[in-house]
Amino acid sequence: MFISRRTILIEWGDCDPADIVFYPRYFCWFDASTANHFRAAGLPKPELVRRYDVVGFPMVDTRAIFHVPSRHGDEVTIETRITRFGRSSFDVEHRLMRGGVLAVEGFEKRVLVAKSADGEGITACPVPEEVIAIFRTDRGA
Amino acid sequence: MFISRRTILIEWGDCDPADIVFYPRYFCWFDASTANHFRAAGLPKPELVRRYDVVGFPMVDTRAIFHVPSRHGDEVTIETRITRFGRSSFDVEHRLMRGGVLAVEGFEKRVLVAKSADGEGITACPVPEEVIAIFRTDRGA
Amino acid sequence: MFISRRTILIEWGDCDPADIVFYPRYFCWFDASTANHFRAAGLPKPELVRRYDVVGFPMVDTRAIFHVPSRHGDEVTIETRITRFGRSSFDVEHRLMRGGVLAVEGFEKRVLVAKSADGEGITACPVPEEVIAIFRTDRGA
Amino acid sequence: MFISRRTILIEWGDCDPADIVFYPRYFCWFDASTANHFRAAGLPKPELVRRYDVVGFPMVDTRAIFHVPSRHGDEVTIETRITRFGRSSFDVEHRLMRGGVLAVEGFEKRVLVAKSADGEGITACPVPEEVIAIFRTDRGA
Repeated sequence: MFISRRTILIEWGDCDPADIVFYPRYFCWFDASTANHFRAAGLPKPELVRRYDVVGFPMVDTRAIFHVPSRHGDEVTIETRITRFGRSSFDVEHRLMRGGVLAVEGFEKRVLVAKSADGEGITACPVPEEVIAIFRTDRGA
Repeated sequence: MFISRRTILIEWGDCDPADIVFYPRYFCWFDASTANHFRAAGLPKPELVRRYDVVGFPMVDTRAIFHVPSRHGDEVTIETRITRFGRSSFDVEHRLMRGGVLAVEGFEKRVLVAKSADGEGITACPVPEEVIAIFRTDRGA
Repeated sequence: MFISRRTILIEWGDCDPADIVFYPRYFCWFDASTANHFRAAGLPKPELVRRYDVVGFPMVDTRAIFHVPSRHGDEVTIETRITRFGRSSFDVEHRLMRGGVLAVEGFEKRVLVAKSADGEGITACPVPEEVIAIFRTDRGA
Repeated sequence: MFISRRTILIEWGDCDPADIVFYPRYFCWFDASTANHFRAAGLPKPELVRRYDVVGFPMVDTRAIFHVPSRHGDEVTIETRITRFGRSSFDVEHRLMRGGVLAVEGFEKRVLVAKSADGEGITACPVPEEVIAIFRTDRGA
């Protein structure tokens, strides 16, 4: 599967009184990493929305495991890949590395949604084969 | 002018490695205090939007002066009032108090906006006299 | 086990362009709910730190499942309880309810830590029986 | 005076239901830009703290003026410079540019502080001439 990478400099305001990253911040970075993943693969979300008439891919389940804390001034790299495509859902995995060490793991389950038939709500829709093909590559960014 | 009050418990995640509130958080609280101010006056923003066919009151200029830091576990009170109505704009002042001491002052200039005639953008619109009348009272909440 | 409850009014700034809560915010609220849980049980974290000579209870693993989105202006209630005590760790569960419906579930695994013998780092330490006893009650707050 | 520049990609989670940046985020970026400014000038804050035995430069007064909104997917550049050195204070100005247009201006007054004589609190201390000299250059980064 396609892997994208993004580097982040941890700022003072990302950290809490223990002088380590306040953990909800990791989820902000992971969310941006998923957006970046689609962009890096050549299918930015606005393009996905237009081309396949979908609304987006809201999160239904997310988890993070914290191995090593990071501090302000640290530079970390997030490696992102989609690990599984279901019919309407897909799983994303983020590996946040600091100095070659796996510091935080992030997991996401997202569902592709389109407007429902009555135009009022949203409903899960199949992930187009073309989209899956884009990520099914050994190429990295 | 009408004064509203709101109490906030400062959380661990609101604070930075110096163990004091990371100052952008004050702006989040002030923004919520302005929303609360309209609600407390009996004119919640969704009602304002419906009744006067406006879009909202975006911020054009804001400032904060920091007198005394606060820490997690501190309970603070924000006192809010509108200090001036212009034709399309209004000024809001927030006084964040901790234990009877003025800790932070916040100032906002906001502009009331409606959809522009071409329906594409937004444009400043006059503040309705009825709205001004609601806040021109010595009543507090 | 002891259950604590906390009500939150969702603010404009908690929401994203889809007009629903930007999900990392839920983790901020859950973190504050765990702090509140200890406070509500009569053992605020600063007191715990002093009494048992510990440093805190950092997060090692957290997860959230999103059932129903919430919007600004919504009032939600978070019900929190500790579901399991291990030797050094404990599991916390948060149920965020909106209008009687389970909207988001949050799960945390935290570890009680003290300064390590060399005074340099931190190390897991046993959860005192007294602490466990405080939460092992059917009382709610 | 020395000018530093930093580029930011605006993320989904930085934006509010009006699909524009939730303005407290600008203050987060400005705070990080001030940290970056010292780093870019060759005097990162940790080095400043060590070399001159100071604690930091807390904010005492900050302001932002919003000219043009930005949206997720926008790339913006922040230009930062110190506009004035007082005895213990200094003023920072940030110009956030989008596509050649000045979108937001940020202003900060910060005070250099050291531990007070009794070792308990902090107190304003003179800005070293060496520090001022570092920024008094036409060089940019």
